[in-house]
Amino acid sequence: MRELTIDEIDDLALGATLLGTGGGGDPYVGKLLVKQAIADHGPARVVGPEELPEDGRVLTTAIIGAPTVILEKIPAGTEFRAGIRALAAYLGEEPVALMPIEVGGVNTLVPIATAVELGIPIVDADGMRRAFPQIEMTVFTLHGLLAAPMSIADEKGNMCVFEATTNQTAEALARAAILQLGLANAISCYPMTVADVRRAGIHGSMTYCTEVGRRLAQVKRGTARAWEKLLDYTEAALVFSGKVIDIDRRTTEGFARGTVVLEHLEDASRTMRVEIQNENLIAFEEGEAVVTVPDLLCLLDYESADPITTEGLAYGQRLNVLAMPCAPEWHRDGMFDLVGPRAFGYDIDYVDFRENQR
Amino acid sequence: MRELTIDEIDDLALGATLLGTGGGGDPYVGKLLVKQAIADHGPARVVGPEELPEDGRVLTTAIIGAPTVILEKIPAGTEFRAGIRALAAYLGEEPVALMPIEVGGVNTLVPIATAVELGIPIVDADGMRRAFPQIEMTVFTLHGLLAAPMSIADEKGNMCVFEATTNQTAEALARAAILQLGLANAISCYPMTVADVRRAGIHGSMTYCTEVGRRLAQVKRGTARAWEKLLDYTEAALVFSGKVIDIDRRTTEGFARGTVVLEHLEDASRTMRVEIQNENLIAFEEGEAVVTVPDLLCLLDYESADPITTEGLAYGQRLNVLAMPCAPEWHRDGMFDLVGPRAFGYDIDYVDFRENQR
Repeated sequence: MRELTIDEIDDLALGATLLGTGGGGDPYVGKLLVKQAIADHGPARVVGPEELPEDGRVLTTAIIGAPTVILEKIPAGTEFRAGIRALAAYLGEEPVALMPIEVGGVNTLVPIATAVELGIPIVDADGMRRAFPQIEMTVFTLHGLLAAPMSIADEKGNMCVFEATTNQTAEALARAAILQLGLANAISCYPMTVADVRRAGIHGSMTYCTEVGRRLAQVKRGTARAWEKLLDYTEAALVFSGKVIDIDRRTTEGFARGTVVLEHLEDASRTMRVEIQNENLIAFEEGEAVVTVPDLLCLLDYESADPITTEGLAYGQRLNVLAMPCAPEWHRDGMFDLVGPRAFGYDIDYVDFRENQR
Repeated sequence: MRELTIDEIDDLALGATLLGTGGGGDPYVGKLLVKQAIADHGPARVVGPEELPEDGRVLTTAIIGAPTVILEKIPAGTEFRAGIRALAAYLGEEPVALMPIEVGGVNTLVPIATAVELGIPIVDADGMRRAFPQIEMTVFTLHGLLAAPMSIADEKGNMCVFEATTNQTAEALARAAILQLGLANAISCYPMTVADVRRAGIHGSMTYCTEVGRRLAQVKRGTARAWEKLLDYTEAALVFSGKVIDIDRRTTEGFARGTVVLEHLEDASRTMRVEIQNENLIAFEEGEAVVTVPDLLCLLDYESADPITTEGLAYGQRLNVLAMPCAPEWHRDGMFDLVGPRAFGYDIDYVDFRENQR
């Protein structure tokens, strides 16, 4: 068990913006929640799953909604505790620790703030090591773990507890509920034992995210060889540098969807189209997919190296497009069905961007 | 406490078809469920609220969905017990009795079958003494009672428990959930104490419904003065006799909606248009509303006096249109806002059909 430093929280938040791959909600709000919680309740304690009792209960908490709405609707904070409390009461068991479902976006930070408020540690593990738009899109699903029982809560006192026999049904029920509750709510799902986390979780994802953020901060400061060090650590590749020449975003069916088209900075005959559902999903060049889910597709400001979220996209922006392999824990039976391009409705196969780089 | 006889169950089901005012689901299925439950578990016991302990917990159970779907999807029965069990567990309290939310349609019968299976009595009271399409449309709402905590369950093991700060939010959350769970599910809402039932319930509604059914059965058998006796007991009026010349039905947003137009049997220049949202809501003659919610608008076969449900409507049918005043318990502050024509989106005021009859 160790305490998070303020520097680490800044790095974690910056890393989470990158791993949010355009979605996942802006970690800036989450960072404020964490710092406020620490000021009020004391330090944030991080533990590895091996440090907790095997049969202990680990709960998650996250914002669920459309990032475009989350940006406008600052969490009250009470909804996360309400959701945890409701699920713990339903299960008849208090959590020994919280865990992020996704390390990527605001949901990297939210469970830290809530864990601090509840006086329990946060587990250095998650189910994605990136952001994904739907509840069932976790490595937990690939291990046969259920998202339900789960809870949804808002800040007004509305609350739902769901049992769902599949994680797809869990997603459908949660999405239907948040459409009624304002499109930015607290969810607590995948209640599991420490033994489940040890077996099925992506371990060390918060540590990974903090290191990504630390290296990205060096890029932003212009430290020598910083880009190289970032690409080296993440095994990422810069696949395109371009200017936004077309952008289409809409909030529909509980998601932010859209498309952004970039024109290459050096060769105007080259364009890249990035398809978005909360997160950046697929990059096409001349109709050919060059980067696809579950690999990460990150847009960064060409000058400042700030990761650009879906909400932050603007006409004329000059961007670097970074492709990053997903966590190796994703590579299991069922991965393509769950989080490959076809899971998002694209009639194409997974493309390993590293093949094109060699 | 007294036991329901088989004759009473038949009368209750027939009365419930009439009080369903075209919707509420076909009580025939409910009657089969009740008879099966009695065969398996023993008699159905009916009690008045005054016979139960004041602080005892009364739960409700009902089918929620679109009647057009309910007709196709026979309940398994297990979903009602699952919904009750989940809500009782959430409340930490077992029910001393069940109560119908609506005496009208299949939901008059469903709680009787479930009460028999659970070995507890059914309370002779409800919240509508007719059928209405939305959860908040009860006299309980007029008394400030909350529909939540409530549960929704299906026969597969999917289940939801909701807290909602208003009954309109409860309706929105429930409707969103059933759209994901197949549009015909078990709901348990308005958990209340016996004291609440005594204060806010419509008392004797099952007895009333049984008597309505008994008198309608006499009409169907052609007993002398039977029509007169039915109209006398219900204070109803025959407002139109016509042939179906146009019919439009669709299942949308979780409801069965539609319009039926009748041409008068004796004067072809007269037509009546009946507007439907699960239930028959409003009858117009020459653009003027002549019968409106919350009064009951019932369509019966001209020859057989069978009540015709929305699903049973067919081109060319010859129908009698019966208008029946709603239970006097509806006449409280807030009634028009909750169940008047404007609550259903019609820009007209309530019309007392009895004014035109005098």
